[in-house]
Amino acid sequence: MTDRPATNPSKAHAIVTEVRRRIVEREWRQGDRIPDEVELAVEFGVARATVNKALQLLAEEGLLDRKRRAGTHVTVNPARKATLTIPIVREQIEGAGMAYSHRIIAQKHGPAPADIASRMAEAEGTMMIHLRTVHYGDDKPFQVEDRWINPKAAPGAEHVDFQRINPNEWLVRNFPWLRGDIAFSAENADARDARLLETRQGTALLILQRTTWNDQGAITSVRLAFHPGYSMVASP
Amino acid sequence: MTDRPATNPSKAHAIVTEVRRRIVEREWRQGDRIPDEVELAVEFGVARATVNKALQLLAEEGLLDRKRRAGTHVTVNPARKATLTIPIVREQIEGAGMAYSHRIIAQKHGPAPADIASRMAEAEGTMMIHLRTVHYGDDKPFQVEDRWINPKAAPGAEHVDFQRINPNEWLVRNFPWLRGDIAFSAENADARDARLLETRQGTALLILQRTTWNDQGAITSVRLAFHPGYSMVASP
Repeated sequence: MTDRPATNPSKAHAIVTEVRRRIVEREWRQGDRIPDEVELAVEFGVARATVNKALQLLAEEGLLDRKRRAGTHVTVNPARKATLTIPIVREQIEGAGMAYSHRIIAQKHGPAPADIASRMAEAEGTMMIHLRTVHYGDDKPFQVEDRWINPKAAPGAEHVDFQRINPNEWLVRNFPWLRGDIAFSAENADARDARLLETRQGTALLILQRTTWNDQGAITSVRLAFHPGYSMVASP
Repeated sequence: MTDRPATNPSKAHAIVTEVRRRIVEREWRQGDRIPDEVELAVEFGVARATVNKALQLLAEEGLLDRKRRAGTHVTVNPARKATLTIPIVREQIEGAGMAYSHRIIAQKHGPAPADIASRMAEAEGTMMIHLRTVHYGDDKPFQVEDRWINPKAAPGAEHVDFQRINPNEWLVRNFPWLRGDIAFSAENADARDARLLETRQGTALLILQRTTWNDQGAITSVRLAFHPGYSMVASP
């Protein structure tokens, strides 16, 4: 597929650089209204669409605030957005140069307890698959995964051999999600976390809770507990 | 500023919905090459630019993988991107309906230790401002902030009364950053964390480490320790 942009990317880039410089060096201060597109197009000697593209990029960066009627202002509190890429755990471990393996500690088919059902917006007692998995890098515990899968939104899950393909990977490969809830927190390892992660009870663990949906309902709800000392990097 | 898009947003939206449905229902499976823009434009009876816009949105969602020569494919491992908005702590506390206050526990001007200097890519011993601040909501500790500020990139910091304006807010209002390193982890509260957060030593705390830069160098490096039980929500 060939893209033929209507705008000139290298000129747009030059405008982005110059506008960013004016903001960073506070020639244009926070809250200031900046010149409109037509004025900037004249100043930079480019098409208005190129200015539009450049301002759009700066708005996505959080430096500009664009409103249809009020014009474009320098953001007063630059939105501090950071992007996290939540990797497939096997790829993450292999990407770090370690040998990946996993172990299914428990697998049951049964009714979802109230807190899980509520998190997944399903009726209490909905039949689901409950899996507890440990992911290892070079035979050292990397992550403990406690997961509920809803066969209504992920049909076929009842028949998968999760010893062969880990639940995270099977779901990612088969059930793209449309929306999800993600939250980070810290917990002191309980007795089970400590045993599975081969650490001491009470050790601080980074916890990621995630519930994902497709058009059939909640696919899965998972609690990931990372090994002690793990740090998740975000890119702004 | 009036935006006059060359594409039709409602038609692009309809295409996004239909293509997403085909992927979710696995008519188009992971790794499949999808029809090219011209074919889709004919199928949907729209301008090619509208198809391009729709596919771009789906690529940003992570469902499609677009390559100039190889065409557009359904992503094999949908990138699991999540966006975190890192709020201004005062706004976060007030947004939760609590009264905000802060207390500067320590403020010094002195040489940066090796680990901080290295994190900020500055020479060891560079003179910086070191601040320790507690942020409160309804007089309960919300967050402990341990911050180094580099006056070379944030001139004027030496003369600010941080009892009046907290360091987070002063920096955000005055020094937009161009890039930053952000990482999340969990730590057991040490004696100081425990005292300042009014909790027990050893309690698991969510930790955010952030270092930000502008074109003059590293502005600041901060370690934020959140109160026990705090959960940071990301939106995918």
